[in-house]
Amino acid sequence: MPSEETMRAAMQAYVDAFERADLDALVNLYTDDATVEDPVGSDPKVGRAQIAEFYKTALETGAKLKLSAPVRASHGNAAAMAFDVHLNYQGQDMVISAIDVMTFNEEGKYTSMKAYWGPGDMRVSG
Amino acid sequence: MPSEETMRAAMQAYVDAFERADLDALVNLYTDDATVEDPVGSDPKVGRAQIAEFYKTALETGAKLKLSAPVRASHGNAAAMAFDVHLNYQGQDMVISAIDVMTFNEEGKYTSMKAYWGPGDMRVSG
Repeated sequence: MPSEETMRAAMQAYVDAFERADLDALVNLYTDDATVEDPVGSDPKVGRAQIAEFYKTALETGAKLKLSAPVRASHGNAAAMAFDVHLNYQGQDMVISAIDVMTFNEEGKYTSMKAYWGPGDMRVSG
Repeated sequence: MPSEETMRAAMQAYVDAFERADLDALVNLYTDDATVEDPVGSDPKVGRAQIAEFYKTALETGAKLKLSAPVRASHGNAAAMAFDVHLNYQGQDMVISAIDVMTFNEEGKYTSMKAYWGPGDMRVSG
């Protein structure tokens, strides 16, 4: 199990990678066979190729994350964080309020990510 | 699948039940065979009796929840919320920063709860 500090740092690294629009950094947070379910209720992306495609599209919206509260760890191999995503979709500024839950392998790489946000958590802004 | 509105209301009902220290209301948010893993990494409580015992102990600390950000829903049968728990443990005021993830049955009852908080998310206050 990775340490609490390792997991917290790996969560912050996700926010930081969006800030830099760094696709490689985002994909490298994951294990080779990781899964991404964003939003929860959609078909999961499985493995690096699908995950890379997912984040490529996300970065094209200019998505930036702003934490709503400090990252939460756990007593296991998981952590969670609440944030707002600021993005631009077809010329429209938008905000999505989400909570992401990551699980980790021994080395502190994400084995899975689930993003909790519903239709009502997306709004037009600006 | 319950509606987004049903899930959001059921999350708020959890906060409200703590505010009233209403044990029955808390237990009745769950299905008969629900599971509670609080914190994630601990042995899950299974079923109403264990869940009732868990919340009885929690209410004895005077626990009150303050949302850190609005409840998040999903495109599936789950929702999540970030909050601070203010409680008193053996004469000491404390705060635990947590994120809870609930899954729901068709009627909007919780089938599971997972609480993400680590040792570093607990601090002495006041």
